[in-house]
Amino acid sequence: MCDLDAKRLTAMGRRYPGTQTTTDYKSLMADPELDAVAIATPVWTHFDFAKDALEAGKHVLVEKPLTASVAEAEQLIELAERSGLTLMVDHTFVYNGAVRKIKEIVQSGELGDLLYFDATRINLGLFQDDINVVWDLAPHDFSIMDFVVDGQPELLSAVGSCHIKQGIENIAYVLLKFPNELIAHFHFNWLSPVKIRHTLIAGSRKMVVYDDIEPTEKVRVYDRGVTTRSESDVVDKEAAYQTLVSYRTGDVWVPKLDSTEALHYVCQEFLSAIAQSRRPLTDGQAGLRVVRLLEAAQRSIGAGGGPVRL
Amino acid sequence: MCDLDAKRLTAMGRRYPGTQTTTDYKSLMADPELDAVAIATPVWTHFDFAKDALEAGKHVLVEKPLTASVAEAEQLIELAERSGLTLMVDHTFVYNGAVRKIKEIVQSGELGDLLYFDATRINLGLFQDDINVVWDLAPHDFSIMDFVVDGQPELLSAVGSCHIKQGIENIAYVLLKFPNELIAHFHFNWLSPVKIRHTLIAGSRKMVVYDDIEPTEKVRVYDRGVTTRSESDVVDKEAAYQTLVSYRTGDVWVPKLDSTEALHYVCQEFLSAIAQSRRPLTDGQAGLRVVRLLEAAQRSIGAGGGPVRL
Amino acid sequence: MCDLDAKRLTAMGRRYPGTQTTTDYKSLMADPELDAVAIATPVWTHFDFAKDALEAGKHVLVEKPLTASVAEAEQLIELAERSGLTLMVDHTFVYNGAVRKIKEIVQSGELGDLLYFDATRINLGLFQDDINVVWDLAPHDFSIMDFVVDGQPELLSAVGSCHIKQGIENIAYVLLKFPNELIAHFHFNWLSPVKIRHTLIAGSRKMVVYDDIEPTEKVRVYDRGVTTRSESDVVDKEAAYQTLVSYRTGDVWVPKLDSTEALHYVCQEFLSAIAQSRRPLTDGQAGLRVVRLLEAAQRSIGAGGGPVRL
Amino acid sequence: MCDLDAKRLTAMGRRYPGTQTTTDYKSLMADPELDAVAIATPVWTHFDFAKDALEAGKHVLVEKPLTASVAEAEQLIELAERSGLTLMVDHTFVYNGAVRKIKEIVQSGELGDLLYFDATRINLGLFQDDINVVWDLAPHDFSIMDFVVDGQPELLSAVGSCHIKQGIENIAYVLLKFPNELIAHFHFNWLSPVKIRHTLIAGSRKMVVYDDIEPTEKVRVYDRGVTTRSESDVVDKEAAYQTLVSYRTGDVWVPKLDSTEALHYVCQEFLSAIAQSRRPLTDGQAGLRVVRLLEAAQRSIGAGGGPVRL
Repeated sequence: MCDLDAKRLTAMGRRYPGTQTTTDYKSLMADPELDAVAIATPVWTHFDFAKDALEAGKHVLVEKPLTASVAEAEQLIELAERSGLTLMVDHTFVYNGAVRKIKEIVQSGELGDLLYFDATRINLGLFQDDINVVWDLAPHDFSIMDFVVDGQPELLSAVGSCHIKQGIENIAYVLLKFPNELIAHFHFNWLSPVKIRHTLIAGSRKMVVYDDIEPTEKVRVYDRGVTTRSESDVVDKEAAYQTLVSYRTGDVWVPKLDSTEALHYVCQEFLSAIAQSRRPLTDGQAGLRVVRLLEAAQRSIGAGGGPVRL
Repeated sequence: MCDLDAKRLTAMGRRYPGTQTTTDYKSLMADPELDAVAIATPVWTHFDFAKDALEAGKHVLVEKPLTASVAEAEQLIELAERSGLTLMVDHTFVYNGAVRKIKEIVQSGELGDLLYFDATRINLGLFQDDINVVWDLAPHDFSIMDFVVDGQPELLSAVGSCHIKQGIENIAYVLLKFPNELIAHFHFNWLSPVKIRHTLIAGSRKMVVYDDIEPTEKVRVYDRGVTTRSESDVVDKEAAYQTLVSYRTGDVWVPKLDSTEALHYVCQEFLSAIAQSRRPLTDGQAGLRVVRLLEAAQRSIGAGGGPVRL
Repeated sequence: MCDLDAKRLTAMGRRYPGTQTTTDYKSLMADPELDAVAIATPVWTHFDFAKDALEAGKHVLVEKPLTASVAEAEQLIELAERSGLTLMVDHTFVYNGAVRKIKEIVQSGELGDLLYFDATRINLGLFQDDINVVWDLAPHDFSIMDFVVDGQPELLSAVGSCHIKQGIENIAYVLLKFPNELIAHFHFNWLSPVKIRHTLIAGSRKMVVYDDIEPTEKVRVYDRGVTTRSESDVVDKEAAYQTLVSYRTGDVWVPKLDSTEALHYVCQEFLSAIAQSRRPLTDGQAGLRVVRLLEAAQRSIGAGGGPVRL
Repeated sequence: MCDLDAKRLTAMGRRYPGTQTTTDYKSLMADPELDAVAIATPVWTHFDFAKDALEAGKHVLVEKPLTASVAEAEQLIELAERSGLTLMVDHTFVYNGAVRKIKEIVQSGELGDLLYFDATRINLGLFQDDINVVWDLAPHDFSIMDFVVDGQPELLSAVGSCHIKQGIENIAYVLLKFPNELIAHFHFNWLSPVKIRHTLIAGSRKMVVYDDIEPTEKVRVYDRGVTTRSESDVVDKEAAYQTLVSYRTGDVWVPKLDSTEALHYVCQEFLSAIAQSRRPLTDGQAGLRVVRLLEAAQRSIGAGGGPVRL
């Protein structure tokens, strides 16, 4: 274990007596016994640490977001490829029971065609002074969307506002357009009086509501939607539209979720990916896709909401 | 009372025996006994009916939105001015207990400077085939914002998507920028599995949450926010930022609301405005401001989200 | 239509022009054209009106509770039997979508053996000065239980307290014991700051939660319970108990409900029972069973909670 | 630290390196260096351990409930008195922010006269095989009531049912009557599909709702109640009652709560009580009062709900 804070290091050392501790990460890199490292440090340090680790022949698990820029992410991927090492990013939500259940439901086709993805992640948050609300909160929802939704967005536009510190947005709205009619929208906010973690995933047949505040019933599947028929089927040309479009509301289903801690599966996936020398579920590419969105959002906010092609 | 549907007309006539009924609105206009008319018809008909009524010397109360375009609204205002008649738009929410209480709180300065206004109005809605979700739902929230927030937005950008019928957006996001750091954001949606009517109004000192679904506790005032101090006050340059920015969370207050039906006050205001020949609270100008936002939103959606100067 | 309040009578008459109105109920009884009457008056008047109507050869639908005493209820039943007339009590809840769905679920055996029935019906209520909170609120929950649960309770005990007016309980708790291990408990309260309409129906296999405040998702079926195995199956005698008793928590199902107004089905049932000269679903016996519980509760409260054999 | 489980002991020892560990509690008692002990073991062992500790001259903090019987509790109190040692019971809830705030509000007289106390503590619980749901859950609510409400109940009646294991009630209802019109009611349940921790405390002027599931807004003070006037004040003898009794509904106030962990204050109180050789807030007497209620509830359940004089 490596930490610059000696006190914390000692405490952790006591708790996990099997481990050795150091305040000098170089010694970790130098240790031939060490096969893999996990990096949980500020975003701007990810690249250097991961690069050193990969060059020292270690497999690497990096805290999200993978890096502070697309360029950095691409370098790490390329480096891992070349050296045949596992590079994994800790997109934790991808491994929790709720999101895995949603993925399962979406993949089953039960929802029909995806129409929109709407995520709200707001609360009175811990303000960062090096990164804004997008870099702080968006990695969660971007990685969830990246995991659940097939296909890539082609256009992003974002707006934000700085109410506490110049240059550090504390509220932001991000919109993504996909090739089809699918759109995704996100609301990130450090300055909300109430805590909301609410995601809507609407399909042409069914819809999912994911409320992460709910202690147990986090995922709800609504058998609701709209039925449309082709003009040709309609006789009565008078009330044409009404007969063309009609609601459908049925039962609601609240699936039981695997309550195992996500981190457990994160570690499991990292180890088995190394053992089987295969790509982990959340590999460098997944990390890169999320960083690309973060970078684009930053650029769009800077441009006052102008659309950024992805 | 005038209605093209003779059956409904008879039923209403029975219920309000004092009234005379007709299917020909011209006869209303011609009736010298008639001082004022209320128009509750499809949006695209508002202008003609209101114009005829004003030209016939009647005071006019029009269902929201006032008209289908800015040009029409301006004409009606000009016409009412010239003929010294009362032109009022039925922005119902402006007259309900919750919104009036919020206005009172904002005006008292209790919230401090307004930082953002965030409104969500979504449900599995009744689809219209002549107007989209913005023209259907936005008049509510635009009129609430127009009433509660001082100052005018200078920039609008909006995006929408048509999942049911080409050319009729069923989901839309609208963003408004004000001269200061204040931003307003709106989510309108006819295709949500759940019904949400949720508005956040954040000030520098306190914040209001308005949940219109709540049976009684619709308005909650949170004594929460962020305290920032000027660099100069801070001694310890180390932990500078942490000492500069800190939370404040205090009590929550749920004010009792006047539960009188809004429509009661709408009528009252219309009559007293006529009697005192004064501007009603929601006059033609208020109607115009809302129509201007609707028109701009439509234009921005058409332009794929491009910003529209107001 | 008959009402002592002439003003209300006129208003109703206008609204339903087909009807004749009178302030003298005797004239109703005398009218040979009249086949059936519906009685919605204070409880203590039910018996006299219903008796007169039955003796005048009219079928009768009585507002709940059927009568103010068991003796009265028995007389009406006997009278209706003799004269071959339909006597029905308006246990409205028995006809609403939520309760009918619950009945359906219980009857299907899906819940397994019923273990307990727990109902809470509290709010800041309209105080009555002639009847207490039990006679006011209990008819709802007693009739729901009577409809949903098979078998009759054999023991009742109830306690109450009078905080506003001597002799008029404004809060009461009622407990029912059935021959098996099933128990039913009720909390009635006119003096609660919050409105709660919450019923738990627990079975050995599944459990139902009925929340009547919920706008749409009133009924929830929980696939939760406890699994017990016989000692013999258990090898490890150490952790015997833990292996004998274990939880089961599965999905939650929120069935779609028929939203038709209950009163619609009440009238339908009354008419078809008359037409087919058959017992209505909520006949005199159902009314009697509820009145018996009300009377017993009153007696038990008087006796300071002493158990009353039913 | 003493524990029979050597493995757990080692783990704890590592975590708190300052401490010495043993599996033989006699050695603790023998240690002259040791001034005080905290006992967190099964209920039926509390008495022996606490007795030995007191006889060994140690101050004692015992997990709730204090003992398995009134007789045991009285002996411990007497023993502590004689030897001038501190005997404290860990009624944790008495030390948490929500309950302390409620106590503060009740003591301020803001609520007026207390009318009723209604507590529901239900969930799909961990079944015990040595104690029933009352001994498991009631200590929480009994200690809260004992702390918040002045005056002692004089009558208790309780009913329960065993659905999983004979002789071990998994659901129970307990009612307490106080000298005045105040009543307290409790619902304890190990077999509920939903988790509810809900307490109503109604006063003649205001009412408190304490919802322990709520993450932050646990305590709500409702300015609601009933206003009654003496007959004499009323002129109109017609509508007498209506003018005598009327509602009052005002604002709701959600006070900010101290979020410090209760256990922190428990330890603090134990230490300062020893240091100042004074009675702790939750002393032996408080423990005894709760055990008396538990014992009485057990007896009443055994007697099929018969009232037990306290």
